[in-house]
Amino acid sequence: MNKKSVYKISYGLFVLTASEGDKDNGCIVNTVIQLTSDPMQIAVTVNKGNLTHDMIKNTGKFNVSVIDQTAPFELFKHFGFQSGRDSMKFGTPDSYKFAPKYADNGLLYVSAYANAFMSGKVVKEVDLGTHTMFIAEMTDGEVLSDKPSMTYEYYQANVKPRPAAQKKTGWVCKVCGYVYEGEELPADFVCPICKHGAVDFEKN
Amino acid sequence: MNKKSVYKISYGLFVLTASEGDKDNGCIVNTVIQLTSDPMQIAVTVNKGNLTHDMIKNTGKFNVSVIDQTAPFELFKHFGFQSGRDSMKFGTPDSYKFAPKYADNGLLYVSAYANAFMSGKVVKEVDLGTHTMFIAEMTDGEVLSDKPSMTYEYYQANVKPRPAAQKKTGWVCKVCGYVYEGEELPADFVCPICKHGAVDFEKN
Repeated sequence: MNKKSVYKISYGLFVLTASEGDKDNGCIVNTVIQLTSDPMQIAVTVNKGNLTHDMIKNTGKFNVSVIDQTAPFELFKHFGFQSGRDSMKFGTPDSYKFAPKYADNGLLYVSAYANAFMSGKVVKEVDLGTHTMFIAEMTDGEVLSDKPSMTYEYYQANVKPRPAAQKKTGWVCKVCGYVYEGEELPADFVCPICKHGAVDFEKN
Repeated sequence: MNKKSVYKISYGLFVLTASEGDKDNGCIVNTVIQLTSDPMQIAVTVNKGNLTHDMIKNTGKFNVSVIDQTAPFELFKHFGFQSGRDSMKFGTPDSYKFAPKYADNGLLYVSAYANAFMSGKVVKEVDLGTHTMFIAEMTDGEVLSDKPSMTYEYYQANVKPRPAAQKKTGWVCKVCGYVYEGEELPADFVCPICKHGAVDFEKN
């Protein structure tokens, strides 16, 4: 079995946002799909280690912005490479660049570099071990622009900084570019930045 | 709410295959995702009207081939625009063009115009009304080529025959090109070819 076969699956990229108490948060995901059209249902699968995961689990609500091809690496850094447990992702000067707006469900969504957003109300949860899939009725959604959606493949080819720019040697996370310095990568290693496992690292 | 916002979600395209008794069958889906990497789990969501759906439900096994960018429209016609209830999709001269091969789980997969395949053993089913999501442990998988994966967007732009070639007027299914002839499309209309609803039709 070659686990790399799953890398051939195409994905879009999304900013998933949620809120709990007085804190708004967001993270980057690639696992949004439409499930049915009658009723309109969408699903998103989130790593249990993410603060956004817990917020959705506790509140049953989320927004998802579809990232378009013009999005800069900065967007991925802001929402993908830091944890909302340690830093504010919204309400900071940096976050204004991504034009957060409120949807009807009272949650923020990112409106810059996004060609659409959708609001989901969770109707079912599926426990997948390391992740939870939230199945949601779509309660709102708007098209924001005609720009093409960014795929994960496009991100890898055009947005992610080139490894050549890196000085560290060792094992590079193919998802976020984090470098583990050392000859051998432990099999149970999990990227401290984006939470992907050893299977997503390659030697540079 | 603009339901067209869901069209901005990016997808790959896949031939989903299953078998029951002495019958092999396959259909085209766009809803394959990886869920977790430890253990390796994938999911596929299938319309309950598809024969392949029933075969997977009854046997708990499937294969999925990732369609690459070189695939001709003929592949989509063969697996997507006819029902396995009415016609044999495998074992016919046409089907040999798609180089069906057996995986270790005893099921066929399409090896032509595919850059990878994966085998799934269902561990959980989620009833979504019109569809079922099959959550599966990945039991096998191989990379077949380096050709880029075909996205749904690529299919729409480069593979699907142009509407200009159509002579019929009425409502066109944006998924498969089927034309409903008439001034008004009933709101509950379902495409007889690809099973998509009225929301996926546009007036030509």
